[in-house]
Amino acid sequence: MTDQSTCVQNLTFDLESYLQARKAIIEKALDQSLPIAEPPVIYEAMRYSLLAGGKRLRPILCLATCELVGGTIEMAMPTACALEMIHTMSLIHDDLPAMDNDDYRRGQLTNHKKYGEDIAILAGDGLLAYAFEYVAAQTQGVNPSSVLRVIAKLGHTVGATGLVGGQVLDLASEGNPDISLETLNYIHTHKTGALLEACVVTGAILGEASEETLAALSRYAYNIGLAFQIIDDILDITATQEELGKTAGKDVEADKATYPRLLGLEASKAKADELIEAACAEMSPYGDAGVPLKAIAQLIANRKN
Amino acid sequence: MTDQSTCVQNLTFDLESYLQARKAIIEKALDQSLPIAEPPVIYEAMRYSLLAGGKRLRPILCLATCELVGGTIEMAMPTACALEMIHTMSLIHDDLPAMDNDDYRRGQLTNHKKYGEDIAILAGDGLLAYAFEYVAAQTQGVNPSSVLRVIAKLGHTVGATGLVGGQVLDLASEGNPDISLETLNYIHTHKTGALLEACVVTGAILGEASEETLAALSRYAYNIGLAFQIIDDILDITATQEELGKTAGKDVEADKATYPRLLGLEASKAKADELIEAACAEMSPYGDAGVPLKAIAQLIANRKN
Repeated sequence: MTDQSTCVQNLTFDLESYLQARKAIIEKALDQSLPIAEPPVIYEAMRYSLLAGGKRLRPILCLATCELVGGTIEMAMPTACALEMIHTMSLIHDDLPAMDNDDYRRGQLTNHKKYGEDIAILAGDGLLAYAFEYVAAQTQGVNPSSVLRVIAKLGHTVGATGLVGGQVLDLASEGNPDISLETLNYIHTHKTGALLEACVVTGAILGEASEETLAALSRYAYNIGLAFQIIDDILDITATQEELGKTAGKDVEADKATYPRLLGLEASKAKADELIEAACAEMSPYGDAGVPLKAIAQLIANRKN
Repeated sequence: MTDQSTCVQNLTFDLESYLQARKAIIEKALDQSLPIAEPPVIYEAMRYSLLAGGKRLRPILCLATCELVGGTIEMAMPTACALEMIHTMSLIHDDLPAMDNDDYRRGQLTNHKKYGEDIAILAGDGLLAYAFEYVAAQTQGVNPSSVLRVIAKLGHTVGATGLVGGQVLDLASEGNPDISLETLNYIHTHKTGALLEACVVTGAILGEASEETLAALSRYAYNIGLAFQIIDDILDITATQEELGKTAGKDVEADKATYPRLLGLEASKAKADELIEAACAEMSPYGDAGVPLKAIAQLIANRKN
């Protein structure tokens, strides 16, 4: 990312403080969203993965776009929590032995390694169901029709049209490093991009955004989503396990198709920069209100894990 | 069930024709709800289990209660389909090797036996997500607040507060035939009863039922749900694999706690009859409008598979 970037024009915005403050209120909301009840083991398993840290980028994006269009944090918080529940559920299920068979996630044992495969499957199911319940039951001060639109969007994002569809193609492509760039894009726009898009779009729907703004946010999300994945692929090669908090070098070991493999390392970096630029450009018409979203795009470009 | 039962007073109602006609429109709606798209394998896997037949008792109950309170079939059909998607999802995941490890279901191979474990997990996830999307996006002619209430109820029914919680205790009780009647009741009111209750309650919510009617329907569902499970346990002992369309004698083989085991076979049959009687009594105040629900309760009492 160069200094001439459209992304880095507002030097007065303190991204680190912003993210820290947002992460703190989200952690608190997530903790309160899921108190332990009967039977305790399933709540413990759900909480183990839901409260395992991470940057909370998805809920932060949801709150940010709701504010961007004039809504409040309170209006978007149940959906922000639901997005993290959905993200967590997809990680738990993707890590299962029948899928990616991962032992570590966010620096700790994966859910099935800690609680067993049966509980891990059920913890994922429980989080997914609860995400929808939570949005439907807890959202306050928003037009019910808008809440329904958010729920439809969330369902579309998780199902065969989104995360599930992306994972299916990802599994089918395993051991085949020669898949096309088109297939690789499909996998990642569905596995990663769809949920990031849902974050920014649902926040904006809750804030009663115009269709024009929803379309701009959707393009913003497409760009940061693809950049996020390209950088993920790059980090798998260049970062250590300690930096990542998960197994490094897994893609190469699994002979997986990745952007560095298809495009080369330098061209992959350039492509990521280009996507981040395009994302920032989408936010330019929103002036100061768009600064947090620009800063988050930059954060993705510069992340180390 | 004796002839003096409160259930069998309306001899003019032709239950068989009613169920056949309802099943036909539900099969058609389910088929249309989920056309094959990209990537085809996941849609095929979802459709394989969703369209595998069965009595369609859950969607039939949902349509019936919507009509009971003055609503239409059209208002309830998306929720009726969603209930069957949720039911199907719970069967697919319960059949997995890490759970009950079943090879046959409804007379055909279980989903993971046919498509592999990875696809079966994802097909379940896809069906669960789509159920919520479908209700939110497709319900017409109903107050949006009522649709939100239905979605909250569905989520509560699937999650750790319902199906998932019941399955957790069921797995924990495996190999322990000496669990208490209280634990056995907990397992079944959550694994079977919760979804049946959701069927009758959501249909009635969509039809704008009074709270009093919702409470009566909830009690009706509790009774038929528990009766359903007791009869399931009885059939596991008394019916053949051919009659059941799934492995018979599994409970005994797995040394599972069941009602016949805890209460004896005759006392279990008497308990089921008593529950069916109580269910029918709840519907008595509704006169002719309550007849289909009484007849369905009887059907459960008399089922052979």
